[in-house]
Amino acid sequence: MSVKEECGVFGVFSPHPADVSGICYYGLYALQHRGQESCGIVVNDDGLFISHKDIGLVSEVLTKDVFSSFPRGTMAVGHVRYGTTGATNRANCQPVEVRHKKGYLALAHNGNISNAGRLRDNLEINGAIFHSTSDTEIIAHIITRQRLVCSSIEQAVSNAMNIIDGSYSLVIMSRQKLICARDPYGFRPLCYGKTESGIYVIASESCALTAVGAHFIADVQPGEMIVFSKEGIEHRIQQCNSKPKSICTFEYIYFARPDSVIDGISVQASRVKAGRILADKHPVNADIVIGTPDSGLDAALGYSLQSGIPYGIGLIKNKYIGRTFIAPGQDTRIDRVKIKLNAISETIKDRRVILVDDSIVRGTTIRRTVGILRDAGAKEVHVRISAPPFLYPCYYGTDIDSQENLIACHHTTDRIAELIGADTLGYLPLESLDEITGGHGCCTACFSGAYPTPIPAAGKNQFEQRLSEVRTEE
Amino acid sequence: MSVKEECGVFGVFSPHPADVSGICYYGLYALQHRGQESCGIVVNDDGLFISHKDIGLVSEVLTKDVFSSFPRGTMAVGHVRYGTTGATNRANCQPVEVRHKKGYLALAHNGNISNAGRLRDNLEINGAIFHSTSDTEIIAHIITRQRLVCSSIEQAVSNAMNIIDGSYSLVIMSRQKLICARDPYGFRPLCYGKTESGIYVIASESCALTAVGAHFIADVQPGEMIVFSKEGIEHRIQQCNSKPKSICTFEYIYFARPDSVIDGISVQASRVKAGRILADKHPVNADIVIGTPDSGLDAALGYSLQSGIPYGIGLIKNKYIGRTFIAPGQDTRIDRVKIKLNAISETIKDRRVILVDDSIVRGTTIRRTVGILRDAGAKEVHVRISAPPFLYPCYYGTDIDSQENLIACHHTTDRIAELIGADTLGYLPLESLDEITGGHGCCTACFSGAYPTPIPAAGKNQFEQRLSEVRTEE
Amino acid sequence: MSVKEECGVFGVFSPHPADVSGICYYGLYALQHRGQESCGIVVNDDGLFISHKDIGLVSEVLTKDVFSSFPRGTMAVGHVRYGTTGATNRANCQPVEVRHKKGYLALAHNGNISNAGRLRDNLEINGAIFHSTSDTEIIAHIITRQRLVCSSIEQAVSNAMNIIDGSYSLVIMSRQKLICARDPYGFRPLCYGKTESGIYVIASESCALTAVGAHFIADVQPGEMIVFSKEGIEHRIQQCNSKPKSICTFEYIYFARPDSVIDGISVQASRVKAGRILADKHPVNADIVIGTPDSGLDAALGYSLQSGIPYGIGLIKNKYIGRTFIAPGQDTRIDRVKIKLNAISETIKDRRVILVDDSIVRGTTIRRTVGILRDAGAKEVHVRISAPPFLYPCYYGTDIDSQENLIACHHTTDRIAELIGADTLGYLPLESLDEITGGHGCCTACFSGAYPTPIPAAGKNQFEQRLSEVRTEE
Amino acid sequence: MSVKEECGVFGVFSPHPADVSGICYYGLYALQHRGQESCGIVVNDDGLFISHKDIGLVSEVLTKDVFSSFPRGTMAVGHVRYGTTGATNRANCQPVEVRHKKGYLALAHNGNISNAGRLRDNLEINGAIFHSTSDTEIIAHIITRQRLVCSSIEQAVSNAMNIIDGSYSLVIMSRQKLICARDPYGFRPLCYGKTESGIYVIASESCALTAVGAHFIADVQPGEMIVFSKEGIEHRIQQCNSKPKSICTFEYIYFARPDSVIDGISVQASRVKAGRILADKHPVNADIVIGTPDSGLDAALGYSLQSGIPYGIGLIKNKYIGRTFIAPGQDTRIDRVKIKLNAISETIKDRRVILVDDSIVRGTTIRRTVGILRDAGAKEVHVRISAPPFLYPCYYGTDIDSQENLIACHHTTDRIAELIGADTLGYLPLESLDEITGGHGCCTACFSGAYPTPIPAAGKNQFEQRLSEVRTEE
Repeated sequence: MSVKEECGVFGVFSPHPADVSGICYYGLYALQHRGQESCGIVVNDDGLFISHKDIGLVSEVLTKDVFSSFPRGTMAVGHVRYGTTGATNRANCQPVEVRHKKGYLALAHNGNISNAGRLRDNLEINGAIFHSTSDTEIIAHIITRQRLVCSSIEQAVSNAMNIIDGSYSLVIMSRQKLICARDPYGFRPLCYGKTESGIYVIASESCALTAVGAHFIADVQPGEMIVFSKEGIEHRIQQCNSKPKSICTFEYIYFARPDSVIDGISVQASRVKAGRILADKHPVNADIVIGTPDSGLDAALGYSLQSGIPYGIGLIKNKYIGRTFIAPGQDTRIDRVKIKLNAISETIKDRRVILVDDSIVRGTTIRRTVGILRDAGAKEVHVRISAPPFLYPCYYGTDIDSQENLIACHHTTDRIAELIGADTLGYLPLESLDEITGGHGCCTACFSGAYPTPIPAAGKNQFEQRLSEVRTEE
Repeated sequence: MSVKEECGVFGVFSPHPADVSGICYYGLYALQHRGQESCGIVVNDDGLFISHKDIGLVSEVLTKDVFSSFPRGTMAVGHVRYGTTGATNRANCQPVEVRHKKGYLALAHNGNISNAGRLRDNLEINGAIFHSTSDTEIIAHIITRQRLVCSSIEQAVSNAMNIIDGSYSLVIMSRQKLICARDPYGFRPLCYGKTESGIYVIASESCALTAVGAHFIADVQPGEMIVFSKEGIEHRIQQCNSKPKSICTFEYIYFARPDSVIDGISVQASRVKAGRILADKHPVNADIVIGTPDSGLDAALGYSLQSGIPYGIGLIKNKYIGRTFIAPGQDTRIDRVKIKLNAISETIKDRRVILVDDSIVRGTTIRRTVGILRDAGAKEVHVRISAPPFLYPCYYGTDIDSQENLIACHHTTDRIAELIGADTLGYLPLESLDEITGGHGCCTACFSGAYPTPIPAAGKNQFEQRLSEVRTEE
Repeated sequence: MSVKEECGVFGVFSPHPADVSGICYYGLYALQHRGQESCGIVVNDDGLFISHKDIGLVSEVLTKDVFSSFPRGTMAVGHVRYGTTGATNRANCQPVEVRHKKGYLALAHNGNISNAGRLRDNLEINGAIFHSTSDTEIIAHIITRQRLVCSSIEQAVSNAMNIIDGSYSLVIMSRQKLICARDPYGFRPLCYGKTESGIYVIASESCALTAVGAHFIADVQPGEMIVFSKEGIEHRIQQCNSKPKSICTFEYIYFARPDSVIDGISVQASRVKAGRILADKHPVNADIVIGTPDSGLDAALGYSLQSGIPYGIGLIKNKYIGRTFIAPGQDTRIDRVKIKLNAISETIKDRRVILVDDSIVRGTTIRRTVGILRDAGAKEVHVRISAPPFLYPCYYGTDIDSQENLIACHHTTDRIAELIGADTLGYLPLESLDEITGGHGCCTACFSGAYPTPIPAAGKNQFEQRLSEVRTEE
Repeated sequence: MSVKEECGVFGVFSPHPADVSGICYYGLYALQHRGQESCGIVVNDDGLFISHKDIGLVSEVLTKDVFSSFPRGTMAVGHVRYGTTGATNRANCQPVEVRHKKGYLALAHNGNISNAGRLRDNLEINGAIFHSTSDTEIIAHIITRQRLVCSSIEQAVSNAMNIIDGSYSLVIMSRQKLICARDPYGFRPLCYGKTESGIYVIASESCALTAVGAHFIADVQPGEMIVFSKEGIEHRIQQCNSKPKSICTFEYIYFARPDSVIDGISVQASRVKAGRILADKHPVNADIVIGTPDSGLDAALGYSLQSGIPYGIGLIKNKYIGRTFIAPGQDTRIDRVKIKLNAISETIKDRRVILVDDSIVRGTTIRRTVGILRDAGAKEVHVRISAPPFLYPCYYGTDIDSQENLIACHHTTDRIAELIGADTLGYLPLESLDEITGGHGCCTACFSGAYPTPIPAAGKNQFEQRLSEVRTEE
């Protein structure tokens, strides 16, 4: 599927000088699935900030040479980013670093500020200049300005949380403190843990805690800010905490790694559950259940367990297809999807196949996948999707295609089945979503249109519009 | 596991000028699992050879810039290589290209010449000089010298096949012909197919045929040579064909991609079968069967199907761990295996787990994997290995560790179970091997010591020894 | 010598879409001697800014791939930078680009803001955040804030010129205008010209105009701002123009290329003149006059012409010693200077040599150069320096070593001669400086201590001090 | 000018383990002017060969990382190469390394084998295969085959010298010996020296000895072979020594660095002499004499000294124009020569200028240079060339353009003056050549057609022809 994930954040706080860049590196490796466009690390060595960030995977950017230039330190903050625009821009790499009146700040952000346009306007009226197009720079400005009138950085962050709307999971490093904060709705995940040597670790997902040998302590609560400093850990629950919990459903369905546990719910368990629900709601006679690797596998297993139809491994994914894949040879008409996925005839041939995938956006990819199965000899192909149909835009950080391209906005389920070449098609019912995310409040806006916050007036194109107005002003 | 695969070869023959480098690129992508150290492509543009080869993955070596420099052509040969020595050497990159009396040759080779030392001696006595340490250069010399006294390149290759011992799957390109050949024992796989536009494609594995949209025609038979030229396809079965068929068992167990079919047997089917046999031979009461990704998954599924114990996804592999992974931070004591693999507690916790893996070499990796499962809360861990114990060195191209490091050479199965922290341990019985490879003759030497060919006197260290003798001679 | 040059700026304004990035590239090539650490270009394509900047030489940063991504446009601004700190920092690359309330700005700056500390304080108190440590970002902030209360960008720049002290030659690009400005003292050079196809070009030195085929129009006057827009060229002489003209003497002596003409005086002519004065003031009997390549050659020629002693080519410079030169092999004790310079015995042997160089900082380099001449058989070595002794720090952008390292601060001329191994040593008299720069007012502060502006209180370390105070504040 | 230089060789022999790669690196830096396409070093660490070679400058190929991988050793051989074909081919990088019956060899070669075609034929008939198109590989084959029947490597090299025709300055390294050899005509220079710590150094030019702190001992004599081993230095004058000495005149005129002394004659002195001769043979009334940097400067100085007309610096060369220079922007019509050279008006304007350059090939470059001087205001431009007109092809390693492109083959001197825009033009008389090279026998074939060896029948295209014949054979 082509919905793109949106950044991972990571933070390290050590009571004693340690290899914080190394811990950060391993953490970012574990979060790489949340963003492959750029990454970066900022190390805090007794108040001095040393950073490296660039376009590329963790393995490409954080090379041996880079590491030898990092000192030991007591804090570090890291980021992996998925950019929604084709033009990869070095200025948008995170963590964002700023020098201000009272010192240094490094910020790593996962989310999307819904009142960004208005905030930016206000800042610019007061003389702010921007080096990038990222929301994170707006956050940096607001915290900085609050810092000028507040007595501490945590006061400033706390005030900023009352100003910023939308989704944010933040890790903020000052000279002496490491702060993490999650928006009052809890749109994006954020948790923290501790290693045996007493080093605190903050991460977008729990899988990154495990990767660095840290034990999970707790999820950062919606509206919560936690301050790590030499004085100890301090929790600050915001008053704004009274908002309805709205964790992004798609974190469970697609974004997060299956070995992560988010807000108390295992991602794998939620996927298996989705598969089980699909089996109940959309049963069909078939010989085998297969999943689209990697994100469809758990739901396929759930479908198999519930239906009793054997689970099979019917599609193999080429794990060497990377960011740098080029597609030469138009005249050879080789299908890009075919390079990535290959059917295993042994499992597919002459079988009635149930294919479980996590979502359908435009329908192009699933159509090709169904084609691959047909070519491999499948007698029937029944597609089951472990999410409801995409119908509405997301303003909280998920890069869903525009409505005009969403196949479900234009066709009935039966017609979609026809268009993608499937014998039958079944989506997860909207009302089952709560079941798979543990019933603790999830955002279903992209499926239901029920936005937990006011929808921004002009939508995402707001900023571009304003710019074009400016063009004639000067 | 740490047994390393050994090269993939690919060839293209088009009756008309075509994007042969593009086809080759896609083919090598599909064969990348057979070698990640270096790769290369040589294109034949009406007799002119244009090549590019270097250390790195296909995606790293064959960049956009490189491709724009390749012309269209009628033939191409490609190679991916796994080098057994730490020192990556550009001189060893393939395809090997040579200019000789009668023209040009490009060779891609998968295998290991068992009489290399003696052949090299003979060649050097007659004035040959070598630029690399690869067997492939020896083959090039022998074919060239035969070419001087034979009337055609295919005669020369045919003669060379009577001179060279050991394992070889070869693709050889001259100015006007593309030739593939497989050794009389058939140690390594080789097959060919045809695209809808009439382009012939040769590949180590059938998955690479599928990847370029070619239909499988046949496996190259042991001892068979096939000549592709403007005059058509010509088969030459060698008289030496009377050798016992000895396809490497490990191609099925570990090397090959599960969507490949080798000598008529689906790789996936053979793995599922191995899992089923394990379930029969080493049953145990347990709650869940999981496989080590990726190569243990199919056998785990087979075990589950045969035993009725549910299949689960209990380990997740970080797919971003690449060739360039560095391991900073000794003081963080982060386990390399932990970076690569993570357990999913949801599936593991409080369960009796059967873990299916493909092999045990030193025992280090499996011990850590078992540890990861224990940490994730597994009540019991029962390890099942879809191959017999490794006991003997391989002289046919598989890089098995030296006997002193093979854990099975020193301990009983029970003791190994103890050492790796497993509750029980079961290997695939030696006598079941034939069953999983379709009964058509496989080499089991690394397990049984039953070598299909005479064992080379001095073994693999022969060449190094000879060199050190030379050192004092001059 | 080791005084380092300090940046070059370049701007292009075309009345019609043109290959402005190409013109900028050639211009930066011609200015490369002013800065080798980093470079960059920003193109203005109908209001859209496209940029590329990075650490490295023009030839390394602005590759073929980069160029293919630049569109045609109507304006461009470019920069080459020499950084004074060892740590090359990508955030300090120029041109600086900012987005503000009223649009976009790109700035390229050569110079040094002497009231930077106070300006930065004021800005930060009002909420400004900084991404780099460069003065240029301060200028960007000040222009932006003025823009908020001014009716046009040129008004804003004009106001900013009344706020900023120190040296600056600026090229500023907005969506619709290209503006250049030179500080009221005229510390750094800046001029402009026009190509035959009507494209205006701004450059730090006239050699860059010639390089792109533009004809010199005029130097930008001290305190002058020039606005290029579709409405035409508009000159604005600032009221602050009443400051004493203070062009940096070292531009003539060392920084600038000999084929440049600055403020009406040919750089080569001023160097030849310095040599002639040296011959008059410090005559000596000798056989040959040689110069240290490249910057000492013209003065050597002047000395020869005035004294009648033949000019010779006695030292050759290795032109392949680049930024990436490494110095392996401590045990080989190879002298770095020896790699760069080699004497030509033919010219030197058994001769009394006059060596003309442009300056002495610590004395290390000249000592080695004298040694090379002695090794090559020079009977006598008489050193003549085409500048007075360095005695005072520079606050206007020249990276002179700290006073404690300046050899002339600690020793008499005779003693220095002894220390560097010369038979005699003669400096250009301070009172002759005016003569070589055409008598139109030059800054001689680094030689005389006569600073044209108030000296900043805390000097260059001011900013670091402030930061360390902050450290304990939070 | 566009005659291209042809390789530099370097060798190190130390009686004790030392930083031989470091010495080699500095030596190659000093020889970089002899070849900028590729370079390489092979270190001999007690019989083990460690090498690195690639396309690029010394500073690009031999990076810090590469150096850290080189061990200390007792011998090293290095090479810089200029390739005559546009297609830079990694297979042609030197030193060539081969493994043969009796050990290892590394060879670095400067020159051109005139009987290469026949030798290659003979070798191929006897089964030899070639990996590159370089003559050096042929030499390696011949030495290897001689080694099989000789009792020592020096015997083999000695025999090979009787087989190989043409020009060669060779450095050959075996496991225990370092050998240098120069062809019987002495076409290319070669000399050796010794450092204070007793390390022997061999180099194409004496400037590379100086660069590593070695004292010049002697030129390798035409036909001489010198063997360095633990047993000491052994000279072997070949019987073939009776050939007429034929050092390439162009080494003095253009190739070599002015600070080198070749066969007892200072390169600078020979150039100054050429200038003096030009002044006598082609006097003209003028105001100033300038040289084209860098190779025309010494001759210009000679002209000035002899004529009494003042010497000036009238052209400046951009030293940052490197291998990677791209030429964007066709529509800007910027002249490539203009980027490289700029006139200094101060010196040129309203003057009658004598321009001294080293040669004219097609006439394009000199025409543009004259144009630059005219644009800068020269009243008259008198061109003097410090070599006779190019009229004949070179078979000994100098890449002179084909006769059809040599302007002197088609026009009289007066007409050429007209074509290049000069007022007058004067060449060095052919009969003066002996004078500038010390009268000890130089090859003047490219000017006179008097080839010291038989001209190869088919000339340089021989090999290509043979290949095309082969094409139809198979």
